[in-house]
Amino acid sequence: MGSEILGLSIIQTFSPRDYMIIKVESVIAITKTKYQEVIIADLKGYGRALVLDGLIQSTEVDEYIYHESLVHPVMIAHPNPERVLIIGGGEGATLREVLKYNTVRKVTMVDIDGELIELCKKYLKSYHQGAFDDPRAEVLIMNGREYVEKTQEKFDVAILDLTDPYGPEISKALYSQEFYEKIYKILKDDGLMVTQAGSSFYFEKVYDYVLNNVKQVFPVVVEYNVWIPSFGYACNFIIGSKKYNPKTLSVNEVEERLSKRGVRGKLRFYSATTHISLMYLPIYRA
Amino acid sequence: MGSEILGLSIIQTFSPRDYMIIKVESVIAITKTKYQEVIIADLKGYGRALVLDGLIQSTEVDEYIYHESLVHPVMIAHPNPERVLIIGGGEGATLREVLKYNTVRKVTMVDIDGELIELCKKYLKSYHQGAFDDPRAEVLIMNGREYVEKTQEKFDVAILDLTDPYGPEISKALYSQEFYEKIYKILKDDGLMVTQAGSSFYFEKVYDYVLNNVKQVFPVVVEYNVWIPSFGYACNFIIGSKKYNPKTLSVNEVEERLSKRGVRGKLRFYSATTHISLMYLPIYRA
Amino acid sequence: MGSEILGLSIIQTFSPRDYMIIKVESVIAITKTKYQEVIIADLKGYGRALVLDGLIQSTEVDEYIYHESLVHPVMIAHPNPERVLIIGGGEGATLREVLKYNTVRKVTMVDIDGELIELCKKYLKSYHQGAFDDPRAEVLIMNGREYVEKTQEKFDVAILDLTDPYGPEISKALYSQEFYEKIYKILKDDGLMVTQAGSSFYFEKVYDYVLNNVKQVFPVVVEYNVWIPSFGYACNFIIGSKKYNPKTLSVNEVEERLSKRGVRGKLRFYSATTHISLMYLPIYRA
Amino acid sequence: MGSEILGLSIIQTFSPRDYMIIKVESVIAITKTKYQEVIIADLKGYGRALVLDGLIQSTEVDEYIYHESLVHPVMIAHPNPERVLIIGGGEGATLREVLKYNTVRKVTMVDIDGELIELCKKYLKSYHQGAFDDPRAEVLIMNGREYVEKTQEKFDVAILDLTDPYGPEISKALYSQEFYEKIYKILKDDGLMVTQAGSSFYFEKVYDYVLNNVKQVFPVVVEYNVWIPSFGYACNFIIGSKKYNPKTLSVNEVEERLSKRGVRGKLRFYSATTHISLMYLPIYRA
Repeated sequence: MGSEILGLSIIQTFSPRDYMIIKVESVIAITKTKYQEVIIADLKGYGRALVLDGLIQSTEVDEYIYHESLVHPVMIAHPNPERVLIIGGGEGATLREVLKYNTVRKVTMVDIDGELIELCKKYLKSYHQGAFDDPRAEVLIMNGREYVEKTQEKFDVAILDLTDPYGPEISKALYSQEFYEKIYKILKDDGLMVTQAGSSFYFEKVYDYVLNNVKQVFPVVVEYNVWIPSFGYACNFIIGSKKYNPKTLSVNEVEERLSKRGVRGKLRFYSATTHISLMYLPIYRA
Repeated sequence: MGSEILGLSIIQTFSPRDYMIIKVESVIAITKTKYQEVIIADLKGYGRALVLDGLIQSTEVDEYIYHESLVHPVMIAHPNPERVLIIGGGEGATLREVLKYNTVRKVTMVDIDGELIELCKKYLKSYHQGAFDDPRAEVLIMNGREYVEKTQEKFDVAILDLTDPYGPEISKALYSQEFYEKIYKILKDDGLMVTQAGSSFYFEKVYDYVLNNVKQVFPVVVEYNVWIPSFGYACNFIIGSKKYNPKTLSVNEVEERLSKRGVRGKLRFYSATTHISLMYLPIYRA
Repeated sequence: MGSEILGLSIIQTFSPRDYMIIKVESVIAITKTKYQEVIIADLKGYGRALVLDGLIQSTEVDEYIYHESLVHPVMIAHPNPERVLIIGGGEGATLREVLKYNTVRKVTMVDIDGELIELCKKYLKSYHQGAFDDPRAEVLIMNGREYVEKTQEKFDVAILDLTDPYGPEISKALYSQEFYEKIYKILKDDGLMVTQAGSSFYFEKVYDYVLNNVKQVFPVVVEYNVWIPSFGYACNFIIGSKKYNPKTLSVNEVEERLSKRGVRGKLRFYSATTHISLMYLPIYRA
Repeated sequence: MGSEILGLSIIQTFSPRDYMIIKVESVIAITKTKYQEVIIADLKGYGRALVLDGLIQSTEVDEYIYHESLVHPVMIAHPNPERVLIIGGGEGATLREVLKYNTVRKVTMVDIDGELIELCKKYLKSYHQGAFDDPRAEVLIMNGREYVEKTQEKFDVAILDLTDPYGPEISKALYSQEFYEKIYKILKDDGLMVTQAGSSFYFEKVYDYVLNNVKQVFPVVVEYNVWIPSFGYACNFIIGSKKYNPKTLSVNEVEERLSKRGVRGKLRFYSATTHISLMYLPIYRA
């Protein structure tokens, strides 16, 4: 009688027309913050998960694929990343990845939703693993745009870990050319930024809009995509760089940087060969 | 983008092949007792609900239709119901309906799942409305079959409020001819019993098996069915009676009994005219 | 692995938030007419079905419940129905039911969607059973509203067999007070009309709007509802009558009329006792 | 009201517990052959698709990703593939890819389901593109196992394009060590084989069973995986080779072979850089 599908489920849509049904084992929290509907739940086969406005953001079994893919290509491409900015990233897992680098002196994480961060701190311990308490970490509850407009600091790397560009209104402004120009200004002369960019396969037009916005601002632009099982698609990432090109690194160079910076042995998905693979995997388009 | 269907849902199957998706607003409890998986949740449009093994048992907005339909036809058909037995009925709502009769001196409710009853007591207050604390109510946590085999008491009315006959193994034995024979023995000479019987439309064979079992034991058998929105079908009920036939009551007789017994004004679905209607509505068969 | 749910399905929504998944065995036709998306398919457990704009209109196993419930209460309430108007009813099954009366001299069926009628003629033979070829039947492909405005004829009974009042735009105007006034004008002095009215349980406001519109126009108004399995709910019907009240008929009177008019023995759901039951079943409201 | 999800859909399960709902625009054919349930349908956003036993095998928009990933790594790894065997591959698209090589003198495709092939020939023209009529192609309707046991020929490359190893019984035997031993025997001394292997992420145990079976038989084993959107996961492939290792080819070598063999310019997903990427992308495991 199809017993597996019965009972509590999360239904998410990962395209303009396809749906995914995922079994829920228990619900840890369900609430509306000022900005979004938050569900933290244990999903069958995926473990503890964060769901925002009905879309899975991360699950325990595959969040490392997303977060390592987001953080490391851009961190490795920089010769000495000391000062890092994260916008979004409420789970604390992006922060966790950045803090693995012994080169990093300070990371500022700016997230608009303080209630969400409190929920993540409490219920997603396997995600942040205490990263919020690292003395190099600074967490600011504020609008990322506002922060970028006002800060006087300059960064080596900026990481935009946002909800999808075709998602909630709140994130859309952070995918505009205007915003990338502001990011450009607060990066040092050899700085890089990376943004997750949703699905180029299912939302090609929006993706091209974002890609083009990055291209209008940065001289070096690199695209890559990685399948994230709980998303239902290969997630796209776009790097905008003032100087360095992550594509030109050799396996050996990546290997060496991972070693020197103390990251080696702390990763599950990303590696020197993975770096090469990501740089050459075709971008999915429908 | 079909936003209504997104997020947390209960998926239930109400036939061998059809499914229903119902939105969940929050999950109050999700656990496995010794006997079944229990979810207590607030469902969009249905309010607080009890879900056992993936099947909605009751929801706040329509439980009164189910419980009034189960309890009153048989209670009204008896000229003076004083001693009542309920098997199952963990929510306490069947108990609540029985206790509305001022003729009732004692109700014994026997449910195998003590953990379930504790959850219902705590989270389904609008269902039991304190019925568990009524001095006329006795609640026993034990196997209904065992109770029926051992009790020395005789009852005017027995009400079987069980999970479906085609549902979990635990309930199946309580739909057998053998069990009805035991029920027959503990009823007084003019006693009646009623059982919910799942769906005759979607599970015709199982329904006929149950119907036939009742017919093998009781001289008077009456069937009726009532659409319960959150079930996705018209729920069937079968009355087995030693003497009285609920079908032969007139509107006036029902009216009078409701008044005398103090039930009038306390009902939302059942009434004298509803009684007539239920007795004459065709039984759905595929 | 839940094999039953896999493969081809129809997903329909029967409330503002609940969904039903029904297995499809084969697809006979799928097309867009000028007015609506039409699917004719064989559904597992329901047989050949008509689906308009994603909503099941009728299935082979339960269409008789809907069509008998729509047609007979109002036909029986009239002492001698000779001239009948049907608006909508593309399947031809409403026509089939009306033609069972030997009192009927002429039935005019007006449906806006000629392509739909051709599909029904071809693929829904068990529905119309040749009714379209009956010499007493006249089928006009035109806007029902326009017909009602222009016709010079007067009718004993008008039957409105339309898509839901909260459904496609095209039908909405046919649930307005203005339209009922036009129906009133083309009925004889003792005429009656009936309309299906969707679900009072799931769409209470729209239902009340329709009910109130009928009440503004007709002195006698009777409501009833009947569970239709493939709809996922009890379908409501509203009768507006200039003179006769279907509620006051006795079992014997209904019985006698069915006999005299040659309808007896040709029905599966409706009967004299069913008539009484329908008249007294409470109207479902959330 | 979530209109996108309404109407005709394919529901498929891509894991032991997750489901995917995909909209159907029209159904071209639905039938049961002697071996499987076949649906050929136009899916919203995916075009013409082949669905076997409820699982999407290929869709028009992404079949090239699957078929190019299956065929080219192994074909390129061989220095001069002349004689090729395909088992399964009813759509004719694997055949199409193999025939792009000017080195190929003869391809034998063995599929058990002749009815399926006829349906594919008729309705999946954009897949096979006439490949069935190529004079170098030989199509045999028979059990793949039987063919492998009886053939006297020797092959350079064998391509196993089967339903999933955790799918229908019919394919399971073709993932056994015993079967790979038979494949080994009919390969030339420097031959290679490749098999699709379902999902290592969702069916890790079955995948490891298959992987181990290949390892028991072939000295060189290479794994890779590629996200196929309409599958809902990254599809795994396993190469078993007697001599050549596809992993050791450089970008230039791949490039050169593609050119010489006349394949260049005929591919959409696979390329020299894609080859490198596939060889280094981590294998997904839960």
